[in-house]
Amino acid sequence: MIVIKVGGALGINYDLFLQDLAGLVKNKNQEIVLVHGGSGELNEISTKLGKPPKMVTSASGHVSRRTDKETLEIFNMVLCGKMNKMIVEKLQQLGVNAIGLSGIDGRLLVGKRKNIIIVEDGKKKIIRDDYTGKIEEVNVDLIRLLLGNGFMPVITPPGLSYENEAINVDGDRAAAIIASSLKAEALVILSNIPGLLKDVDDESSLIKEINKEEIDDYMQFAKKRMKKKVMGATEALNQGVQKVIFGDARIENPITKALEGQGTVIQ
Amino acid sequence: MIVIKVGGALGINYDLFLQDLAGLVKNKNQEIVLVHGGSGELNEISTKLGKPPKMVTSASGHVSRRTDKETLEIFNMVLCGKMNKMIVEKLQQLGVNAIGLSGIDGRLLVGKRKNIIIVEDGKKKIIRDDYTGKIEEVNVDLIRLLLGNGFMPVITPPGLSYENEAINVDGDRAAAIIASSLKAEALVILSNIPGLLKDVDDESSLIKEINKEEIDDYMQFAKKRMKKKVMGATEALNQGVQKVIFGDARIENPITKALEGQGTVIQ
Repeated sequence: MIVIKVGGALGINYDLFLQDLAGLVKNKNQEIVLVHGGSGELNEISTKLGKPPKMVTSASGHVSRRTDKETLEIFNMVLCGKMNKMIVEKLQQLGVNAIGLSGIDGRLLVGKRKNIIIVEDGKKKIIRDDYTGKIEEVNVDLIRLLLGNGFMPVITPPGLSYENEAINVDGDRAAAIIASSLKAEALVILSNIPGLLKDVDDESSLIKEINKEEIDDYMQFAKKRMKKKVMGATEALNQGVQKVIFGDARIENPITKALEGQGTVIQ
Repeated sequence: MIVIKVGGALGINYDLFLQDLAGLVKNKNQEIVLVHGGSGELNEISTKLGKPPKMVTSASGHVSRRTDKETLEIFNMVLCGKMNKMIVEKLQQLGVNAIGLSGIDGRLLVGKRKNIIIVEDGKKKIIRDDYTGKIEEVNVDLIRLLLGNGFMPVITPPGLSYENEAINVDGDRAAAIIASSLKAEALVILSNIPGLLKDVDDESSLIKEINKEEIDDYMQFAKKRMKKKVMGATEALNQGVQKVIFGDARIENPITKALEGQGTVIQ
């Protein structure tokens, strides 16, 4: 069993990615759970709808997408509607019986809604209408029920809070906890870069191998969205996933190549 | 087992509807499959996105929503993203473990893509990039698998064509074939009117009972979207569903009242 996370950034070639995925499922009988994001499309469509993305920095320095109820509706439209169904349709065309689910469906991904505390005019202030959080529990039975009946789960945020509210959660870290909950042998995280880079502007500075005991030393190289990927990798490895690979989603056979070691392999 | 279809027109009170639904599931142990639409929201959001709704009349006089690829993406965003997840989230808050699915997920609703033939300048012309169709097969095993494991399916168009393309299908007729495939005892179709009216402008002209043998005589009263509902009712009754009720989704306890006979009861 492997868990694959594919990003939602522009530049990713979903057709090549899904062809590779379908080949692994059909020819190699590989058991796969797919997790996806949709940040690129989300920024575009929320801007079109007059609600451009806004990031918020908490008092502790953590950056997240400001997610009020209206943003969450657009989030659901883009991730659960556009991206998830686009992927499911293409997989059906490739002969894979995919089934798309968000984290709120069947209580698939449940976690804690965060209190976003910001500093304004030197005073700490809680943003009350923000729906952001972190997944802590995975409904493994539901995933196994679907896999056992011949369906491939295609999973997307949002997750569900303990108070039963939809919450914006990070896809990489959701994939990490899904992988560890399923005791997956590998977690493959694909995005629009070749892996973890020493110099974010130089794709030839790829870090090819990391010993999992030393992963903390590499956090310094993780910029922007890569931070969450390295955090997710650390969480997955700490919870028993044997191997995490950061690979390039823009190339042909991106999963096969990542599994062969192209990218950043952490084990 | 009953199948409930709730419309997507403006004026429907989803909170009252879902409270009633949750009560039936939790207190009366009623097995329910929910099907929903989203036409009101769809018109609004597609207009906001610069793609206002456009209806097309075929050479045979049939009216449908012109559904090119871009429209279908917006359709997916609104029905599978916004509406479906809004319903699933509210049901989770009411203690019902709902799971949202479109017809393309797990090949739940499969059917025929139509050739839309229009007449232009006196000549017949096929619209090649239209994705509209009609459901002919329901994956009953998947619905029973979910029900049997404690999940309540919340189902929305699109469906999947035999060529594995997402297709815009009518929600009322999809609900009808779901009801007959599941051998449901009743199909309840709720919308923003009290039922089938003799005079569409006079809510007191409600037709309270129809003998199913005589349903064809009542087609004359079905205007606009009500046509598809009467067609769906006819299909469901012909395929063994015992009772179809058209009820009002704007009131308190709309399902309970429909099951008690408030609305148009066809049997």
